[in-house]
Amino acid sequence: MNRLSIFGIHGIPEVRTGDDLAGLILAAAAGQGTPLADGDVLVVTQKVVSKAEGRLVDIDPAVGHRAIVERESVRVLRRRGELIISETAHGFVCANAGVDLSNVEQGRAALLPVDPDRSARRLRDAVRGATGLHVGVVVSDTFGRPWRRGVTDVAIGCAGIAGVVDLRGSTDGLGRELQVTEVAVVDEVAAAAELVMGKASRVPAAVVRGLERSWLRDGEVRREVLRRPGDDLFR
Amino acid sequence: MNRLSIFGIHGIPEVRTGDDLAGLILAAAAGQGTPLADGDVLVVTQKVVSKAEGRLVDIDPAVGHRAIVERESVRVLRRRGELIISETAHGFVCANAGVDLSNVEQGRAALLPVDPDRSARRLRDAVRGATGLHVGVVVSDTFGRPWRRGVTDVAIGCAGIAGVVDLRGSTDGLGRELQVTEVAVVDEVAAAAELVMGKASRVPAAVVRGLERSWLRDGEVRREVLRRPGDDLFR
Repeated sequence: MNRLSIFGIHGIPEVRTGDDLAGLILAAAAGQGTPLADGDVLVVTQKVVSKAEGRLVDIDPAVGHRAIVERESVRVLRRRGELIISETAHGFVCANAGVDLSNVEQGRAALLPVDPDRSARRLRDAVRGATGLHVGVVVSDTFGRPWRRGVTDVAIGCAGIAGVVDLRGSTDGLGRELQVTEVAVVDEVAAAAELVMGKASRVPAAVVRGLERSWLRDGEVRREVLRRPGDDLFR
Repeated sequence: MNRLSIFGIHGIPEVRTGDDLAGLILAAAAGQGTPLADGDVLVVTQKVVSKAEGRLVDIDPAVGHRAIVERESVRVLRRRGELIISETAHGFVCANAGVDLSNVEQGRAALLPVDPDRSARRLRDAVRGATGLHVGVVVSDTFGRPWRRGVTDVAIGCAGIAGVVDLRGSTDGLGRELQVTEVAVVDEVAAAAELVMGKASRVPAAVVRGLERSWLRDGEVRREVLRRPGDDLFR
């Protein structure tokens, strides 16, 4: 029987530009008695990745964070009041271009990493370098969605785990070819991890243990998960 | 430290109209050595709920399943080739109005339950009646989404678990009020459960154990999660 175990990594200190984020996470995981293991998938929130990478900017008080949101957007899909739904240079469609003010010093804003898949690869490599362990890494962020209320966590970058698992050609329990073929497992992993993080409790990393081993291959959010505008019925 | 354990329930027989679905699930969970426990959340796929409720229809070979999709739709948002993105009478926006041909007898189609929140309440009550246990129940289905490739599982009905958890008024780690306030935990639970189900392996139910107890209150997908068209920027 397949069984997943999911737990948060507590005790990670406030992250600053240039910090060895992998080292902080490994130490905290070991410190709480749950060291990482081969085959684990480590989910890390965008916020601490952006902080470690120095993706923080000052907000000009004369114009507020709105100017930053406009600058980070390549295409605005919708506006309503203070809310802007836009596409970022990466190809993410989200509120406020992913610019975030919570859990950031007053007067500063956190931008998305320049290349979140690369951020994930660096974390994976740093974990491997420090411990020899092969883990997957997911960088997660909190996005809204059309048609449904409430936010959920999704993957903005990954390494060592598939973005989408292709079940094309598999048959269902009655021997018929499956209609639904491609599952965005990396987004489901991000969502699952959020359940142990809690927005307010400063748990910026979690471990998902026990995932199907065949999913732990090289993956990429940008190439696998982001829909190209021409393939998209809603852009 | 909060820790989730998630496992599939194997050995559930092919479900037929009128079956005691809760009884089949309880027996299979006990049979594999993982009986349900107080505070568990049981995630059950739409497919077996629809089968147990007899939500199966014959496909008229002259017109195919397309006519059923049209009948189940109250509003068509997009069409491309065979694909229809539409709104159902429940208020779900999804492909083909949730009409499903996989894991269903040839020539038949499975419709969504009439009221999936009610389906979840009935399952919860049946579990309580048979065992005395208080569990949450989520009825899940597999939906696509705009802007991102791949499908993920979401909740179409729930009972005994919150749809959306409101973090309004909470403060972040730096004492500032959180910007992001409402988390659709019920969708994250559905996504997490899908990771142990696997589309092709006929595991139509899973248990999520260890969720925050305060989330295990009366919830409803329709009232909490579905965005009303007037509040929706994409309809």
